[in-house]
Amino acid sequence: MDTVTLNSPCDMHLHLRDGAMMEGVIAFSVSQFSAAVIMPNLLPPLKNTKSVKEYESRIVTAANCADFLPLMTLFYHEGLTKEELTQAKTAGIKIIKLYPRGLTTNSDKGPKQLLSSKNLKIFKMIEDVGMILSLHGESSGFVMDREFEFLGVFEELAKMFPKLRLILEHVSDARSVDVIERYANTFGTITLHHLLFTLDDLMGDKLQPHLFCKPSFKLPRDRDALRVAAFNAHPKFSFGSDSAPHLREDKECPYCAAGVFSAPVLLPALVELFEKNNALEFLQPFLSLNATRIYQFNPPKRAITLVKKPFKVAREYEGVVSFLSEKEISWSIQSSF
Amino acid sequence: MDTVTLNSPCDMHLHLRDGAMMEGVIAFSVSQFSAAVIMPNLLPPLKNTKSVKEYESRIVTAANCADFLPLMTLFYHEGLTKEELTQAKTAGIKIIKLYPRGLTTNSDKGPKQLLSSKNLKIFKMIEDVGMILSLHGESSGFVMDREFEFLGVFEELAKMFPKLRLILEHVSDARSVDVIERYANTFGTITLHHLLFTLDDLMGDKLQPHLFCKPSFKLPRDRDALRVAAFNAHPKFSFGSDSAPHLREDKECPYCAAGVFSAPVLLPALVELFEKNNALEFLQPFLSLNATRIYQFNPPKRAITLVKKPFKVAREYEGVVSFLSEKEISWSIQSSF
Repeated sequence: MDTVTLNSPCDMHLHLRDGAMMEGVIAFSVSQFSAAVIMPNLLPPLKNTKSVKEYESRIVTAANCADFLPLMTLFYHEGLTKEELTQAKTAGIKIIKLYPRGLTTNSDKGPKQLLSSKNLKIFKMIEDVGMILSLHGESSGFVMDREFEFLGVFEELAKMFPKLRLILEHVSDARSVDVIERYANTFGTITLHHLLFTLDDLMGDKLQPHLFCKPSFKLPRDRDALRVAAFNAHPKFSFGSDSAPHLREDKECPYCAAGVFSAPVLLPALVELFEKNNALEFLQPFLSLNATRIYQFNPPKRAITLVKKPFKVAREYEGVVSFLSEKEISWSIQSSF
Repeated sequence: MDTVTLNSPCDMHLHLRDGAMMEGVIAFSVSQFSAAVIMPNLLPPLKNTKSVKEYESRIVTAANCADFLPLMTLFYHEGLTKEELTQAKTAGIKIIKLYPRGLTTNSDKGPKQLLSSKNLKIFKMIEDVGMILSLHGESSGFVMDREFEFLGVFEELAKMFPKLRLILEHVSDARSVDVIERYANTFGTITLHHLLFTLDDLMGDKLQPHLFCKPSFKLPRDRDALRVAAFNAHPKFSFGSDSAPHLREDKECPYCAAGVFSAPVLLPALVELFEKNNALEFLQPFLSLNATRIYQFNPPKRAITLVKKPFKVAREYEGVVSFLSEKEISWSIQSSF
């Protein structure tokens, strides 16, 4: 096959940042996706409807494309009220994003004890209002066990709030796949980089800070479980890139930030990966149908066509070293309507 | 206790490099140790007696201290002959260092198949000549399993060559401790950094390239097994820092070199660690008696006295970021005779 057309692909986990950085990176997402879930962990985090809507309007202006739908998220914090949630829902915000405190970029304002009575009350409100709860699912334990250790809390929430849709973001551990399959109300997103790599790629040869991300890459069996889910378009999982630009100087330094800037290469690399694994037929539902069913929304109708023609990834874009920097991908984007 | 005196401490695994770098870093070792095993993985590696002896003489000149004994090592390669080994032994070289090919800094000339008939013949020669075989013990498998996967080969060697003293360098996996205990002819060295840290310290928060080393930091249970061995001066283990200076620009970059430059802080940090763990009485045998018994040599008689006085580690020395950079250690070196 020499061309592949993807209808309304969606990126259900995206960091666009703000200001000049956002203006520099947004085109990569706009040109490849119909819709994207935009994460709220700016500094300061987007803790109320007003700040989310203002951010949305900056995004719409920068995107400059009627056929790109940003799905906005509200930053979970312990001060959330029913009024705030209702207001957010009314304003079109469907997703609350929860970061356990201190576990990733700009998560200082997240909750510390997820199962405290205060948080349980807020989860009940989110369920009642009919919003989605999206979770960065890690404990504060040993780095390779963090997602697994979080699963206990995740299961408790699934059982206590059966009508609350729970999304475990950027699944990295094979055992998460099992748990997500276990409950009607649990779902996951999967990144390109967790489909491609294990801890070996980060640090098996030289250490590669531009591959450093959270949750951490895990074992081959973990990557392989994610591949089975993605290559079969498992109905519980949608694609979420977690593309997260950091300036080169924040990655090549003594204390490197976590995050992989994959936005420039997403569709070409996904087509290449799915083709190599004889799973091309499942890329369309993984990228679109699963997302629209799980999140219940209608993305703008678009057709993105890729052609089998080498695409040499640049070393960096906008001062940010790209994922797969300087590598050659066998597919290129031909047109994006 | 306000002072601690260490008699003839030995660092049984040290990278001094060569030229300007060696001249810049050697004083840290000379001021803290009576003797050190000097690794031969220069570029090109030191594959014959002549190059080892020339290197030794550059070290002796740079050390400028009659009471610092460099224990030289010959780089293992498949061209080693009985003549070369005999010549080396006669010239005072007691240790052959083996790096499996491609697994760490400057290991391109190491062997690929350790148990090939060619290598088995050389191991027999080393045994017959009465030299020590020191091993970088890693497979080419998944980064967290490499040392464990090597243990099968290590055990085979221990059984096939019962009179050959085998040293598993920079032990990082709890299971290696068990194997080393199992055979009369197997021993290990333990670094300061593997006693202090796990994978969490490298990448649990921000990623810290200056902590990146091989073998990789492992799990808490691995670090704890090494602590039990060191804090009891287990007779099978001696101290080997594996201090390995790399210029800052080779660590803060897209592909970071493996190695931790611990030479500037070794004795203060060891005293602090052993004191905190009520194991100070075992530091002396761990640092000296075990080494002299395992390697059968007599280090120059020296007494290094440390005093309980804060020592602020510099950010870098000679363009190399130090281990524990900018941290404060509660012990300082008072005098070194």
